[in-house]
Amino acid sequence: MTIMQNVKRRHFLIGAAGAVGAGATGAIPAFAQEAGKLPDYVAWKDAEDFIVHSAQTLETKRGVIGTSIVTPNSEMYIRNNLPAPDEAIVADRDAWEVSFEGLSDAKTMTLGELKKVAVETVATVLQCSGNGRAFFEHETSGSQWATGAAGCAIWSGVPVRALVEAMGGVSEGMQWLTGTGGEEIPEGLPPETIQVERSVPKEALETAILAWEMNGEPIPLAHGGPLRLVIPGYFGVNNVKYLKRLAFTAEESPAKIQQTSYRMRPVGEKGAPSQPSMYEMPVKSWITGPLRDAETGRVQIHGVAMGGTEELEKVEVSLDGGQTWQDAPMVGPDLGKYAWRPFVLITDLAEGTHELVSRATTTSGETQPEDFPANERGYGNNGWRVHGVDVTVG
Amino acid sequence: MTIMQNVKRRHFLIGAAGAVGAGATGAIPAFAQEAGKLPDYVAWKDAEDFIVHSAQTLETKRGVIGTSIVTPNSEMYIRNNLPAPDEAIVADRDAWEVSFEGLSDAKTMTLGELKKVAVETVATVLQCSGNGRAFFEHETSGSQWATGAAGCAIWSGVPVRALVEAMGGVSEGMQWLTGTGGEEIPEGLPPETIQVERSVPKEALETAILAWEMNGEPIPLAHGGPLRLVIPGYFGVNNVKYLKRLAFTAEESPAKIQQTSYRMRPVGEKGAPSQPSMYEMPVKSWITGPLRDAETGRVQIHGVAMGGTEELEKVEVSLDGGQTWQDAPMVGPDLGKYAWRPFVLITDLAEGTHELVSRATTTSGETQPEDFPANERGYGNNGWRVHGVDVTVG
Repeated sequence: MTIMQNVKRRHFLIGAAGAVGAGATGAIPAFAQEAGKLPDYVAWKDAEDFIVHSAQTLETKRGVIGTSIVTPNSEMYIRNNLPAPDEAIVADRDAWEVSFEGLSDAKTMTLGELKKVAVETVATVLQCSGNGRAFFEHETSGSQWATGAAGCAIWSGVPVRALVEAMGGVSEGMQWLTGTGGEEIPEGLPPETIQVERSVPKEALETAILAWEMNGEPIPLAHGGPLRLVIPGYFGVNNVKYLKRLAFTAEESPAKIQQTSYRMRPVGEKGAPSQPSMYEMPVKSWITGPLRDAETGRVQIHGVAMGGTEELEKVEVSLDGGQTWQDAPMVGPDLGKYAWRPFVLITDLAEGTHELVSRATTTSGETQPEDFPANERGYGNNGWRVHGVDVTVG
Repeated sequence: MTIMQNVKRRHFLIGAAGAVGAGATGAIPAFAQEAGKLPDYVAWKDAEDFIVHSAQTLETKRGVIGTSIVTPNSEMYIRNNLPAPDEAIVADRDAWEVSFEGLSDAKTMTLGELKKVAVETVATVLQCSGNGRAFFEHETSGSQWATGAAGCAIWSGVPVRALVEAMGGVSEGMQWLTGTGGEEIPEGLPPETIQVERSVPKEALETAILAWEMNGEPIPLAHGGPLRLVIPGYFGVNNVKYLKRLAFTAEESPAKIQQTSYRMRPVGEKGAPSQPSMYEMPVKSWITGPLRDAETGRVQIHGVAMGGTEELEKVEVSLDGGQTWQDAPMVGPDLGKYAWRPFVLITDLAEGTHELVSRATTTSGETQPEDFPANERGYGNNGWRVHGVDVTVG
């Protein structure tokens, strides 16, 4: 039995020995070996479920995602730009303060007060801009995420538009919705070099919420509790953790993470404000099983598909590397256009090796490209071919 | 600040000291004090979230349920009729065997084989028949559940109807769908006295699934993994854990749990097969916050509402013990008629004490009664008055 994933095919051939351990399917062996211990702030997660790229970057193993719509908090990936603040900030969650700016009657509010303004619940995929980076052929810096820097969660909080209304509307001339994270900035460093502060076009206020609950629990510290800015359908970095300031601003944040990081540009170019920032997520899908070869021809192929900011129209699966396609039924309730939907196709495969790939399409006709163009930081990869899985029968 | 819940009002007055600790709101102090340790098989849950009635009966504290649709596995209540089997049965989940009977081509299948027949995902409330027992005025035996023997989870598994089709249909004369649990029966005891074996009318095959996944994870042992019979909209006892046999039978199971237990009857009567068995759940709702008195008049009232086996039409909240009612908006995506829906009403309360109650109504017009009739075992309580919460402002 051999296993081969399309993780830089030239470099990785995942043998049975590396991948057959409980829960280890889909792991890249080099990282799987470090998975025995998790850092303190995420010690409540099961180390078996993750590929540990670093103390602040934990990837959910491909085979851990099942056929349910929701990714349990315990299985959600971790990507923190700075170390998480001290646990003390979640000791009295309702006391957490957020300052608002750029509104007619802007003020500072506690989380306890926010809870009495309005409540909305939304399901959305959370996905790192660099998810799929490992599948690019060119060398990229940053965590070599395969499929597991993504998950789908249900968030509850106060809609930003209700706060805007309560504070008299956005001040004139403000173009950006800017969120500032509450991570500690080490002394001596100019804050803008490492401050987690992101600006998105202010229209995002229509769907954004300030969330205190994740999948029915107070948001864990590791995922941004006590309060996180959640912008449905936007890449993870925009969903600022430990939110301490929400400002409508005339200009984009001067922080490096806004100005030059998370910018889509050709290989070899430096990041610059003129380049597209990583905002809305595109349509995408990937198979999460089988990841092992099959003894018989009957297989249950399952995976997840997302429309980004649009409803899904269909998911197709190909058993022959994209030569022919068939529709794969989506299973379970639909949590809305920002959520992902599991798909399942049960079929028979002849003896031999099969290249299983999936391709999602939205109701507006957006579909995954065969290959997503190489780019300097390896962002936004939704190409269907490299997300495929090879399975050998017999 | 004082707190009073309608848990046998004559007996319980929950003072601030007993209820203000983190997560302790809604606890009955007598049990809350035991909550520091959980039995081994549920040691992965957070003891703070539960009222421990016994090693096999753990109630989710009322205040732990938030405004998300899904109850995380870590917060789901526990009610096991027998001790859970050894962890060994989840070591190789796909090897678990289930025997089928009462079908033309009945056979034994492994879980690995079941996964290749079909997959369906359904959200359903899981609720113990005795949830709300503590609110009856008469003395009842059994765990004194208040609101927390209920949760809503997303399950994935194979539809029973797909198995029926694959095995040539139900044999003639079979009237019941009978599930048998895989718990160990101590030697020397006649199995029928304690065997967990339940029969439901065979029509349940249209919606039932054999589930291996709960909220995106392989079903934990404590919740019936590796394989559980899930009958959406049916009380917990029918959702047989560690399913080892699924039989279409001519008669109901001879087990005590079927013949005389879980039978609705007047106070003082013994259980008998002629009485209604606890199958479909009725419409119900309850407030899960606030459970503490308020310092200001502005409150966020939230709770959960379920239609049982029917779609919800509306949830109403009364601030004056049922004299006047107003609609409370349901929040978040609708996971279907078997799921519950959180509701939120933000309002202002004058100084003084307010009796907050909620009342749900289905699209067919079924609504919660003011009081549910007393019955011998304290089953099925969905009366709105006793599920109320008193809150004092000022």
